[in-house]
Amino acid sequence: MFENDFTRRLNIQFPIIQAPMAGGPTTAELVAEVSNAGGLGSLGAAYLKPEKLRNTIQEIRQLTELPFGVNLFVPEEAAESPDIIEQMTSHLNKYRVELGIKENPPIDSASESFDEQIQVLLDESIPVVSFTFGIPPKEVIQALKDQGTTVIGTATTVEEAKQLELAGADAIVAQGSEAGGHRGSFLKNAADSLVGTMALVPQIVDQVSVPVIASGGIMDGRGLVASLALGAVAVQMGTAFLASVKSGAHPIYKKTLLSANEDTTVVTRAYSGKPARGIQTTFIKEMEQYAGAIPAFPIQNAMTRDIRQAAAQSNNPEYMSLWAGQGLRLASEHPAAAIIKQTISQAHALVESRFRTKD
Amino acid sequence: MFENDFTRRLNIQFPIIQAPMAGGPTTAELVAEVSNAGGLGSLGAAYLKPEKLRNTIQEIRQLTELPFGVNLFVPEEAAESPDIIEQMTSHLNKYRVELGIKENPPIDSASESFDEQIQVLLDESIPVVSFTFGIPPKEVIQALKDQGTTVIGTATTVEEAKQLELAGADAIVAQGSEAGGHRGSFLKNAADSLVGTMALVPQIVDQVSVPVIASGGIMDGRGLVASLALGAVAVQMGTAFLASVKSGAHPIYKKTLLSANEDTTVVTRAYSGKPARGIQTTFIKEMEQYAGAIPAFPIQNAMTRDIRQAAAQSNNPEYMSLWAGQGLRLASEHPAAAIIKQTISQAHALVESRFRTKD
Repeated sequence: MFENDFTRRLNIQFPIIQAPMAGGPTTAELVAEVSNAGGLGSLGAAYLKPEKLRNTIQEIRQLTELPFGVNLFVPEEAAESPDIIEQMTSHLNKYRVELGIKENPPIDSASESFDEQIQVLLDESIPVVSFTFGIPPKEVIQALKDQGTTVIGTATTVEEAKQLELAGADAIVAQGSEAGGHRGSFLKNAADSLVGTMALVPQIVDQVSVPVIASGGIMDGRGLVASLALGAVAVQMGTAFLASVKSGAHPIYKKTLLSANEDTTVVTRAYSGKPARGIQTTFIKEMEQYAGAIPAFPIQNAMTRDIRQAAAQSNNPEYMSLWAGQGLRLASEHPAAAIIKQTISQAHALVESRFRTKD
Repeated sequence: MFENDFTRRLNIQFPIIQAPMAGGPTTAELVAEVSNAGGLGSLGAAYLKPEKLRNTIQEIRQLTELPFGVNLFVPEEAAESPDIIEQMTSHLNKYRVELGIKENPPIDSASESFDEQIQVLLDESIPVVSFTFGIPPKEVIQALKDQGTTVIGTATTVEEAKQLELAGADAIVAQGSEAGGHRGSFLKNAADSLVGTMALVPQIVDQVSVPVIASGGIMDGRGLVASLALGAVAVQMGTAFLASVKSGAHPIYKKTLLSANEDTTVVTRAYSGKPARGIQTTFIKEMEQYAGAIPAFPIQNAMTRDIRQAAAQSNNPEYMSLWAGQGLRLASEHPAAAIIKQTISQAHALVESRFRTKD
């Protein structure tokens, strides 16, 4: 029931992709655990420098011989006027005072080189590479495909999906509005449209011929079966694994997640400059009152980094970015392997009881 | 497969409720057609005066002997300062000039009496009565239940669902963020949370013991099967029927809907004072630039009524309220009965091909 052309192509047992959550949660251990449990583990590598990326990939390979994925952000030119940066710096300095960090650390926003990251992925011949925030250069897609990598793009509207297909993506993640973390939107206005998974998946399925992976709000066997019914070949689940044992999310992040409700997330540009869904915090609320402009991604992301790190060190969730999707009442602190096992057995039982009885 | 305790209780063949779309779309003909086709037709009666409500119910009964539903809005106290009203009046007057209607028509915001509407429903002994915008008074729920009416509430968060269950609702519509028209939210901050159907339904199902009806983004057999997988006993579909033959939606509204995409809707307070999802229009965009406060529902709704009506008369969709959900690429201009038939046959075929094969 859960085997299809896509799972066969990826050589995975179950149509479950663990979402690549950049910034810490997707440790080598988590990625390998998911792959060993029959899903596809994914490393959120957007913020990893090339050497760290290479080391983590090798670490994953010591823990599993099974396929896994790596996700990168497609870079874009970002420049902000000195005025906007100066104004944001002075807004952020109050957090630095409060957290006891020295003011105005150097902004290291261009530290990750996309080209170098891609070279590592080519050197290491990664089975699956997915992209967020747009369409990578043609040569990059071709080089990856030439060595047998399955290339996956992320779409939040039908038009984005069509453009990704045209560019050569082998499969498309349809990211519904429920999804935690950054919106993958890259076309004008797409980030504002926030189309829910139930509406997005079938509309994309109808308009592209490549396989579609459902994401956003999928937390268990019910979400898996629902997504397959909508026409997806697989699901991508992030929040479901975020509080799992081997997730690298900070303990206070996990704790906040496990006690939060479905109505406590918001989509905000406060932390990174790009819209992302996370649990409401003081930092977000105060940024809503901020009169100036928020610098573009990745500048804002680099400008808030020291604050997020210091907040994590002092166990203060209110200044941390607590990315989470809207299904968070269903998050689990169990091991990822147990979450996959439970998802599959729930899906089987559900199909048996709901859909295999006589009419 | 599609029969369950809930369909048996309502005495309907298929677990499909046509959403009560107030303000015109749900004609007696549409309601009766849906019921005759095996679903549950619903009259969106919120804006109907008692006599009109009674007449429409009798009209429905001449067209079908099968059960149907009626939906009302739970009223709330609304008062706005004369300043806010005056400022909005002057913003709206430019549309009146453009549309050739005389300025400052009397505001008729208290024209519908909830108590009288309820009395009609009691007199007429309606099989199913649903409520939007909150919890009706205890006596109202009790009086309806005493005469055998199934009472349905609308929830946009788990907490709203719990409160509706506690108040005695027999079933709950879980309204996901994809849904067109007014958000049913009634608790503080709930309207802002915009939880998608994929995330909302299972979380509500886990927290209440009454049956849950999925709504928001459900347009066809795929959405029906997905909703049942999420734990819903039935679906409520609105946009799916909005452009159907007997829908009373204005021809230009239907035409706009059928050519619109999934990313062209927004949630706005511009027309009624309460958040509702509809296709982006000039009226909405211009209201976003409006510096003052938008009067509360139903005052704003009454204040914009003459403009919406005059715009409809002059076939100008830009000043009309074009409520629609995010699934709108899948909307159909076929008869409602054909839409139901197609939904059911698609759902059967889907279950057969996806979920009845051997593992």
